[in-house]
Amino acid sequence: MDLSRLRKDPVTSRWVVISPDRGGLPGPDAPRRPAGLPPEACPFCPGREAEGAGGEIAAEREPGTAPGGPGWWVRVIPDRFPIFHIEGGVEKSAEGLYDSMNAVGAHELIIETPEHVSHWARFEGLQLERVLRSVRQRSLDLRNDARFRHLMWVKNHGLSGSVFQHQHSHVMASPFVPRVIEEELKGFGDYARWKERCVLCDIVKQECHDGRRVLFQEGSLLAFAPFASCFPYECWLVPMSHGHDYGAATPGTLRDLARVLRKVAAALERLLSDPPFTLTLHSSPLGEFAREEYHWHLEIVPHPPRLLGPEWGTGIFVNPVSPEVAAERLRGALE
Amino acid sequence: MDLSRLRKDPVTSRWVVISPDRGGLPGPDAPRRPAGLPPEACPFCPGREAEGAGGEIAAEREPGTAPGGPGWWVRVIPDRFPIFHIEGGVEKSAEGLYDSMNAVGAHELIIETPEHVSHWARFEGLQLERVLRSVRQRSLDLRNDARFRHLMWVKNHGLSGSVFQHQHSHVMASPFVPRVIEEELKGFGDYARWKERCVLCDIVKQECHDGRRVLFQEGSLLAFAPFASCFPYECWLVPMSHGHDYGAATPGTLRDLARVLRKVAAALERLLSDPPFTLTLHSSPLGEFAREEYHWHLEIVPHPPRLLGPEWGTGIFVNPVSPEVAAERLRGALE
Repeated sequence: MDLSRLRKDPVTSRWVVISPDRGGLPGPDAPRRPAGLPPEACPFCPGREAEGAGGEIAAEREPGTAPGGPGWWVRVIPDRFPIFHIEGGVEKSAEGLYDSMNAVGAHELIIETPEHVSHWARFEGLQLERVLRSVRQRSLDLRNDARFRHLMWVKNHGLSGSVFQHQHSHVMASPFVPRVIEEELKGFGDYARWKERCVLCDIVKQECHDGRRVLFQEGSLLAFAPFASCFPYECWLVPMSHGHDYGAATPGTLRDLARVLRKVAAALERLLSDPPFTLTLHSSPLGEFAREEYHWHLEIVPHPPRLLGPEWGTGIFVNPVSPEVAAERLRGALE
Repeated sequence: MDLSRLRKDPVTSRWVVISPDRGGLPGPDAPRRPAGLPPEACPFCPGREAEGAGGEIAAEREPGTAPGGPGWWVRVIPDRFPIFHIEGGVEKSAEGLYDSMNAVGAHELIIETPEHVSHWARFEGLQLERVLRSVRQRSLDLRNDARFRHLMWVKNHGLSGSVFQHQHSHVMASPFVPRVIEEELKGFGDYARWKERCVLCDIVKQECHDGRRVLFQEGSLLAFAPFASCFPYECWLVPMSHGHDYGAATPGTLRDLARVLRKVAAALERLLSDPPFTLTLHSSPLGEFAREEYHWHLEIVPHPPRLLGPEWGTGIFVNPVSPEVAAERLRGALE
């Protein structure tokens, strides 16, 4: 197997994963696969636990059931086409101007439910809370590995490239801090030095006071459409009290967050006819790279049917739906 | 008409265009339009010059033909759904934490040929050179307007959202420097302070010496697949001698660049069955924001059929085709 490598752009210092062994996934070189598999062929359904590549990394299970067999509610396994590989040290190398390192890290799959259910909106009450607890457990476990600087949780719902309808998401630990988080860290840091406050705490206060972009508040969580939304119907889910680390979220916060996620997912499904969306956990980097001025949150971006403008090449986002209109429509689509 | 506004993300300081008047374009709220128009219905074909919204901003024409009528080779008109608006001053305003300004700027359409031709690969010899000259002319003209800090040239070829097959591209002048260019400026600046050289000049030297990622050299231009390509088959077209400003490119450089563009576009069409691609001009900002350490170039990104990984939310790009393999295949697809 040709392992992934990380390469650093010599102009922008951005790390890119060159991952030829993911050529087996749908891509420019591969034929299209069917969009979904029926339950009887689904490798994520209970009874097929032994077919996976690696063992069970973690699970929430019925008491008395054994790891590796049925009886689980949420199950974490290694990804079959990992972007990051768990083996080896962080070996950096240079070739003239160019830096690279082996793509050491973790890439795990969270199978979010034993049922062959196709949408969070149809998860029963406790299920999303179990998923959120599993993500926290993975965050707390993976940070013991000194090679890892950041933990991500990413869910790509309904992407045309996704083979499996059975609900799942990805946990990744990387040996570098992703660019998006780096940009945010700089913003949080600048604001903290200038105002001695957290910019996202201030945003939450202003949004609650203003109200036009708020979807709803649920206990300790606020769901709103951000003022400078890059994409139509972008939503942020933010804990109202400050905390930099998702790993330190309380059981009460996770319970509230599970309710918020289910409501937002259901509203998006209803309003936009089940659009593909990406959900990303934004939390502080780990260990010595952690920053207490950061404020963890989730971002949900429904994918626009196509890119409309110059976003692709310039990084200028053109959003044809104002967040005020998006929030009003999403409020109207809440249960 | 509800004019676009620019809003600044209070965490990352990124400017976003909130443009509700582009709702008329294909988007989440609009039904799909047909992918192409036949020549008899094409508003860009000669004979329909009077139907456009605004007048002719510039043109390369047959001697003796009048502006606003046929006889043009390349024609520049205002975009019907402008992202940036030419009227008004740069008025900034604040609302608590949030900054916004009116989206003042220019958004022009370059109709690249009088023929209803669907691909650069089928342009006759001189045509792309005329297009490149028109872009330079617009850059030199628009920089006289002190409101504008940056000029972009962007071509979205074959995007499913693009109504018109008739080849065209966009020139935009913005009152801020786009994030992608800002990131590059920082990289060029850091390298220049550290090494007292240009990082892209050094990259060009190393690529020529190494050869594995080079597509070809044509006169003063080098086409290669960058070492840390974010996307499969990404190509950079770089003048081999240093220059920060596309507006100062010589006629000889534009002639070489036109040949390179045509060859690369033809190779992409042949190798990847006419993929949609985005081409972006990367040039130094204008006026007092200009930086001589910058090195202008073009970037071409064929769009992957779908996003494969966590790019969308995290900014971590996973590229399943190494630039060495991409360059080898593209070399094999050259005429």
